[in-house]
Amino acid sequence: MNERPILVSEVGLRDGLQSIGSIMPTEAKMEWIRAEAAAGIRELEVGSFVPAKLLPQLADTAALVRFARTIPGLTVAVLVPNLRGAEAAIEAGAHKITLPCSVSETHSLRNLRRSHAQLLEEARAIAQALRALPRERRPHFECSLSTAFGCTLEGHIAPARVAVLAEQLMAAGCDEVGLADTSGYADPGAVRRVVRLVRSVVGQDALTGIHLHNTRGLGLANALAALEQNVTTFDSSLAGLGGCPFAPGASGNIVTEDLCFMLEAMGVDTGVDLAALLRVRAVLSRALPGESLYGFTAEAGLPLGFGATAQAE
Amino acid sequence: MNERPILVSEVGLRDGLQSIGSIMPTEAKMEWIRAEAAAGIRELEVGSFVPAKLLPQLADTAALVRFARTIPGLTVAVLVPNLRGAEAAIEAGAHKITLPCSVSETHSLRNLRRSHAQLLEEARAIAQALRALPRERRPHFECSLSTAFGCTLEGHIAPARVAVLAEQLMAAGCDEVGLADTSGYADPGAVRRVVRLVRSVVGQDALTGIHLHNTRGLGLANALAALEQNVTTFDSSLAGLGGCPFAPGASGNIVTEDLCFMLEAMGVDTGVDLAALLRVRAVLSRALPGESLYGFTAEAGLPLGFGATAQAE
Repeated sequence: MNERPILVSEVGLRDGLQSIGSIMPTEAKMEWIRAEAAAGIRELEVGSFVPAKLLPQLADTAALVRFARTIPGLTVAVLVPNLRGAEAAIEAGAHKITLPCSVSETHSLRNLRRSHAQLLEEARAIAQALRALPRERRPHFECSLSTAFGCTLEGHIAPARVAVLAEQLMAAGCDEVGLADTSGYADPGAVRRVVRLVRSVVGQDALTGIHLHNTRGLGLANALAALEQNVTTFDSSLAGLGGCPFAPGASGNIVTEDLCFMLEAMGVDTGVDLAALLRVRAVLSRALPGESLYGFTAEAGLPLGFGATAQAE
Repeated sequence: MNERPILVSEVGLRDGLQSIGSIMPTEAKMEWIRAEAAAGIRELEVGSFVPAKLLPQLADTAALVRFARTIPGLTVAVLVPNLRGAEAAIEAGAHKITLPCSVSETHSLRNLRRSHAQLLEEARAIAQALRALPRERRPHFECSLSTAFGCTLEGHIAPARVAVLAEQLMAAGCDEVGLADTSGYADPGAVRRVVRLVRSVVGQDALTGIHLHNTRGLGLANALAALEQNVTTFDSSLAGLGGCPFAPGASGNIVTEDLCFMLEAMGVDTGVDLAALLRVRAVLSRALPGESLYGFTAEAGLPLGFGATAQAE
């Protein structure tokens, strides 16, 4: 069905850790990265280059990028809020940088204190800095269209607004746009419509990824709808850690283990060893003793005989 | 997409209440039935005609059938384990009876102490009793193919086995077969395959309903896959109450509120007033103070402006 391989991109180290109170020690984060890569996850967002006084939980992002780069075959991604963050990401050696771009301008102003015009200016500046680099040092530059399906401040977001901003960001020089359901407003029909509409404007190859939350329980149904539209990169968070601290009530990334279980059960190869992935939760339990871990598959366990027959048909 | 209207069939009064310790008073059950019907639910499974010493929680099923029949437009369904249960259902005036038929013979023997041969004999006896009735007193007779996607005792269930039993049950005289993911083993691909295969044997109109659990978090993704196959009746449980007490680790019906939210968000008319549906949870909180209530939509609330714009596009 899909020509590209399916990529599950772990974002718990960024989206998860930024929205909980506890600060995870760098050593534990490295253990998490190592264990999850060993379980077969091939892309990890290890942090965000924001000022440490805003998000002290992510102050060690540069060290994590340098560490994660030593793991063969792993794509090391980071979030960057601006040009300064992008420069730090380049210096640390990130393979992929993501600039969050909220389609809801109200959300953008509250979240990053930035209008769409300012956002596009920032994207252009980052693209220019990247073009000055030799190709082998140039990270892949994604703009993530947050609140693409709705916003807790503005409510419904018309798909045409998503397409307009996507086109502007591509013109500003990013390599790709992604869709993010920051507030858990997506449904499977909206996923189909928005993916199709945005691709009709930016092209099939410029939209390959989606970032879904499970706020109203529809996360995996939305992932299925995206898969059917040949979306190939799915963000998720181990044990469902985290959410968006700026969108009240919008917590809850989709759970990496449940997403991988769904895909593998369907015969979609994720490269992930599910039993090994489930064991990575122990790293979180030990390092974040006060925090809740989520996930249905971890609770229920894998089906009897899973892997032996279910995928054979 | 679908020619028939979509029907959300509430099974919490049976599948939910049978698997919790508390016994809900009959008056509270009646309040639940009344409130959920008023919120727009058009089919309710109000109980099961099993011996009261086995499931004292459901001992008032006959009284509930008689009460629910007084609500205009409501289809009153019950589970029956055998001919004796079917006779009680007929006497009480149920509109629909469901005989659970486990595809896993191991599960069937443990759960209802009955081989497939004995099960088919029971189905034939019920069908014969129904044929003797005048048409206006004859309930719709469904056989529910439980463990259709896998079994905690046998593991994977080959779809061909589901089709064989479905054909035998139709030959035995039931009006329709349903699929039940008793153990939470289904995935969207399996839902598609099994629905198509069974229909290729029994015909499109003889399989319209599915009973899904959310054991591994895939419940709504599986519902979406079923919807895309033109399945029109979806069992679910208010607040996710319950599961199957005979399949260890298989608890958790899909949540009525989340299912209705997904369908309504997609523009699929369920006839349900979501805000009113969410308020019915209060009946459960009051009558079952010690029991956990689940559901993402109830936790997060409806999206800002939901209903005004989301469905208009």
